[in-house]
Amino acid sequence: MTGKVESADEENGDIESGYFSITATAQEIQKSDEVHKVPLPQNKRTFRALKHWSGECFFPDDPLHNVKKQKTVTKKALMVLQYLFPVLIWGSDYSLELLKSDAIAGLTIASLAIPQGISYAKLAYLPPVYGLYSSFVPPLIYLVLGSSRDLAVGSSSIVSVVLGSMISEEVSPYEQPELYLKLALTATFFAGALQASLGLLRLGFIVEFLSKPTLAGFTGGAAIITVLQQLKGLTGINHFTTKTGFLPVVLSVFSHMSEWNSRTMAMGFAFLAFLLLTRHISLKRPKLYLISATGPLISVIISTIIIYAFRPASQTIQTVGMLEEGLNPPSIDKLLFKSSYLMLTIKTGIITGILSLTEGIAVGRTFASLKDYQIDGNKEMMAIGIMNIAGSCSSCFITTGSFSRSAVNYNSGSKTAISNLVMASVVLITMMFLMPLFYYTPNVILAVTIILAVVGLIDFKVPIKLWKVDKIDFIAYLTAFIGVLFISVPIGLAIAVGISVIKILLPVTRPNISIMGNVLGTQSYRSLGQYRDAKRVPYLLILSIEFPIYFASAVYLQDRILRWVREEEERALMLKENGIKCVVLDMSAVTAIDISGIDALLEIKKALNNRSLQVVLANPIGEVANKLFISEAWEKFGSDNIYMNVAEAVAAITKLIKSQQ
Amino acid sequence: MTGKVESADEENGDIESGYFSITATAQEIQKSDEVHKVPLPQNKRTFRALKHWSGECFFPDDPLHNVKKQKTVTKKALMVLQYLFPVLIWGSDYSLELLKSDAIAGLTIASLAIPQGISYAKLAYLPPVYGLYSSFVPPLIYLVLGSSRDLAVGSSSIVSVVLGSMISEEVSPYEQPELYLKLALTATFFAGALQASLGLLRLGFIVEFLSKPTLAGFTGGAAIITVLQQLKGLTGINHFTTKTGFLPVVLSVFSHMSEWNSRTMAMGFAFLAFLLLTRHISLKRPKLYLISATGPLISVIISTIIIYAFRPASQTIQTVGMLEEGLNPPSIDKLLFKSSYLMLTIKTGIITGILSLTEGIAVGRTFASLKDYQIDGNKEMMAIGIMNIAGSCSSCFITTGSFSRSAVNYNSGSKTAISNLVMASVVLITMMFLMPLFYYTPNVILAVTIILAVVGLIDFKVPIKLWKVDKIDFIAYLTAFIGVLFISVPIGLAIAVGISVIKILLPVTRPNISIMGNVLGTQSYRSLGQYRDAKRVPYLLILSIEFPIYFASAVYLQDRILRWVREEEERALMLKENGIKCVVLDMSAVTAIDISGIDALLEIKKALNNRSLQVVLANPIGEVANKLFISEAWEKFGSDNIYMNVAEAVAAITKLIKSQQ
Repeated sequence: MTGKVESADEENGDIESGYFSITATAQEIQKSDEVHKVPLPQNKRTFRALKHWSGECFFPDDPLHNVKKQKTVTKKALMVLQYLFPVLIWGSDYSLELLKSDAIAGLTIASLAIPQGISYAKLAYLPPVYGLYSSFVPPLIYLVLGSSRDLAVGSSSIVSVVLGSMISEEVSPYEQPELYLKLALTATFFAGALQASLGLLRLGFIVEFLSKPTLAGFTGGAAIITVLQQLKGLTGINHFTTKTGFLPVVLSVFSHMSEWNSRTMAMGFAFLAFLLLTRHISLKRPKLYLISATGPLISVIISTIIIYAFRPASQTIQTVGMLEEGLNPPSIDKLLFKSSYLMLTIKTGIITGILSLTEGIAVGRTFASLKDYQIDGNKEMMAIGIMNIAGSCSSCFITTGSFSRSAVNYNSGSKTAISNLVMASVVLITMMFLMPLFYYTPNVILAVTIILAVVGLIDFKVPIKLWKVDKIDFIAYLTAFIGVLFISVPIGLAIAVGISVIKILLPVTRPNISIMGNVLGTQSYRSLGQYRDAKRVPYLLILSIEFPIYFASAVYLQDRILRWVREEEERALMLKENGIKCVVLDMSAVTAIDISGIDALLEIKKALNNRSLQVVLANPIGEVANKLFISEAWEKFGSDNIYMNVAEAVAAITKLIKSQQ
Repeated sequence: MTGKVESADEENGDIESGYFSITATAQEIQKSDEVHKVPLPQNKRTFRALKHWSGECFFPDDPLHNVKKQKTVTKKALMVLQYLFPVLIWGSDYSLELLKSDAIAGLTIASLAIPQGISYAKLAYLPPVYGLYSSFVPPLIYLVLGSSRDLAVGSSSIVSVVLGSMISEEVSPYEQPELYLKLALTATFFAGALQASLGLLRLGFIVEFLSKPTLAGFTGGAAIITVLQQLKGLTGINHFTTKTGFLPVVLSVFSHMSEWNSRTMAMGFAFLAFLLLTRHISLKRPKLYLISATGPLISVIISTIIIYAFRPASQTIQTVGMLEEGLNPPSIDKLLFKSSYLMLTIKTGIITGILSLTEGIAVGRTFASLKDYQIDGNKEMMAIGIMNIAGSCSSCFITTGSFSRSAVNYNSGSKTAISNLVMASVVLITMMFLMPLFYYTPNVILAVTIILAVVGLIDFKVPIKLWKVDKIDFIAYLTAFIGVLFISVPIGLAIAVGISVIKILLPVTRPNISIMGNVLGTQSYRSLGQYRDAKRVPYLLILSIEFPIYFASAVYLQDRILRWVREEEERALMLKENGIKCVVLDMSAVTAIDISGIDALLEIKKALNNRSLQVVLANPIGEVANKLFISEAWEKFGSDNIYMNVAEAVAAITKLIKSQQ
């Protein structure tokens, strides 16, 4: 490579010749003076284009690429089986050593799962034993179908509170407990069905419309609602509102101050302090994670012993009471598909289904990324969905990959999903034999466990960062937060999702247009606003359109470009510079165009031609070039007026203008 | 400029030196070997950024730029007045010669306006005289406020049929004519209020969400509905359905075959043939446009004379009958804001308001473009809106810039909006003195006039072109067409708008990612798929992300980029080429990014770094560069890893890799 080529801006400096076929010989220099044509992509047949498109759209990670590589049918079948049941991949290599790690992790998460299960069932206004049921069947299903090695299955505080608040709006869990239970199980079924079908149809991206800011705002609002709900347990009052909004709950607590039970409150705050201390220690010394992981179980044990020891003086403190012993009873007969509450259960199923998917997938991805393996989002959805369908038939309410449980699982050194099996076994033993032990467990301890679990979900750094980086994201955050806290879960979510969608649509109607100049000392053209050493090119107005040109932006584009031309002409007149003779539209960032956009381009060309201005296009990319061609706009512009890049357009046109002078 | 620079691809060839500060001296060559930093845009304060953003968003054409230029307050005030009342601009130069042209055009459109007015009132199930009222007040208002010189104001066939079909779904125009009339006027008021406020708030782009395909499909479907409605007049049957769907109308016509009136039908087909002939002549010889423009009036006159001459034999043919004489009566007292039909009138107002805006603005733009002047969409909306508000208070139903009338106006040589004044005067005379003349006008002639007006709206070239250029647009067309024809106007429209929005949202979740190569003989990097002479660069994988990176695409991007890397590694292994050492992400076409997108980029960097792959960015543009910086992603990537363009990145990295070997 000679020094000649190095003089260019887009040079490749010291690359040895041979990699590129340009070695700047005299002929090559001559040749590069030619203008390069913009080639059109091969025009695929409709069917092939559709196949390619659906491949890109639904199978971005090409999930079966391992299958394709296999040559024999048996191997292909084995690969498909392994794809469907990931347990077959890691199961065959399972060793005693792995079991040791998994057993320790499994015991640790079981110690968390039992108090959490009972507490979260109460969040959903369900009998406590359903929390244990839900920690038994779903983990076993996930073990076989799931592709994450670190995910610990269980109910989630936020999803439980959403389930509870949505169904209790129409059916009281205290007045019609049987119906309420049926509706909760039916909603779980719908959630699972939705999750499984989203995964099967590979429509997982629908979940992605819950943007991070929306989700953060929602979680913050729901966490505060959850804490407020715990005021019932913490104060020990009997008359408590069934509403979940901020105001009714606060009013309810303070209008029943006479019912506040000082013993309950004393016990609550004492254990809250204890649990905060365990968390503080674990945060300071991460190796002591076991202290905070087993904190809830220790609290349950100690508080139960206290209540038992000091009875009957402790009688005023509400306890869990009698719990049914035994395995999950089947509950297919409890699913109601023909009730007047069908819409309620479907709506609840959709919202809790999407929320629990979002949590489960995020948990899976987070730990996969920490250990550097990949999980298939769509397959995870199927696993979580099937697990919830099976759960709804065996007395479990909605479960997912629980963040708190999975973090403990990971910290405890779990290696595979076998830790879920260990946890399920411990839960099984508890359900079969240990239920009477919970008789004296005070409700206030469950409330404290929940408060501690959810306050960690409120992160005030998020809104500050959002405000700095993106104001619209901040508004989405705030809307979700306030909406959930003061109005209702579905409405808060709907508004926040709406804002996120508008945020996407807004630039579609108002694409950015930059005026470009030559960056001094280079052959590149960049925005004058961004690059201060970029300078205007005489006679030319170079505009970069920085968004797809759709129907929604077509009119704006015409107005804005004509205004640029007017302003530049006025500017040239004022500074006594040469007037504009040609407008170069840099299409590099126009990633899509539709029929209205094409018409708009032609309109712009016509309007500018009427003012004796030439219009040329630079670098229309693949699909855009194709559409311009099919719609005959290519012909109308003239293929001579379509350049590979701005520099070639500038060169050719300046040459032409010079030759005319 | 020396030959050395010409050897580059993005060269500026024969441009004389002096325009660019690059004259390729030895020092310059040295200098260009340096890597150029990507500068960050100036960080504006929140308020200034908001001001700039709202300026770009709501005032793309900078409507008051003439005002800003004036120096004295008086002149500024005059400019503002001229902006508000365009009549002040052209009114002062108005001459007798212009009046001559406008008078001829005005008389011509009046001859069209009278039969059209009566017919379209019937389309909306309103008494015929309301069609004349609506051709009197609104044109006078538009004259003062409107900025188009060619627009002729009047009711539109499609909008009238939508108004009629939507209100008659809930209130029968035959059983409760008084209530029906009130609802129609109230809907007109809401339509006007919506239009004026959209214009005032400069939210005109909301109208642009009715994409061309949607609108074409809708118009086609509505035109067929309208033609079907005319079967009542054409066959002369008495018992006709009030439904507007395809099936009920066709069933209704054929189940009342006994009522078919042969004289009516004979007359109808005869005049249909006559009008088709006049149109055919005008199409063949555009100078004879007057034949088709006055055709409807001539038909009305001749048919009325025939009926009058041959009575009582002609009695079986239904006629218009007695019409009230006199000026528009005030109708403020008819506006119902507190009825149980409030939602109906608001809904009808929104849909007819948006449809009539779309027609009016399109008409204004079309003729402005023909005569090469510009109209301000938002101001037009205010003019049309105020005209409808005033109309609803003076017994007019919804009006807009009518396409058929404006075309005749333009062809008749109108110069200014004074032609609207002439038309209004003729209508005034008609209303005051000539109403009895319509007593014997047969309904069948009105039906024939309508049929002829709307069949021209059905264009079968549109769906064919859409199928070729854009399949999703074709589906939007078909949905609107079928939806309107077989279901209902609002549902058909809603589905089509939904499809248009999904079309925008889909690529947001699935952005295109192209693998780029060096175009032989140049320093440019282009998609391997599009440019067949583009070749891969050894050791490097260059990916161009061709869409904004939003929350909805963040996960897809990670999956897809990791798959590209996997596939390229397998490819290199198979071909025994050098493996990839670095991934270059070309950000030129990433026009926006949000917080989830930034996190996704960092995740991708982490995942690739874990595989010992370097990741660098090329050409992050303005706002994206800014956000990367604020969110500290810039720092995490390292400013050394962010290049101005792909070529510089390739050069620097290849140098590094070579030096390590």
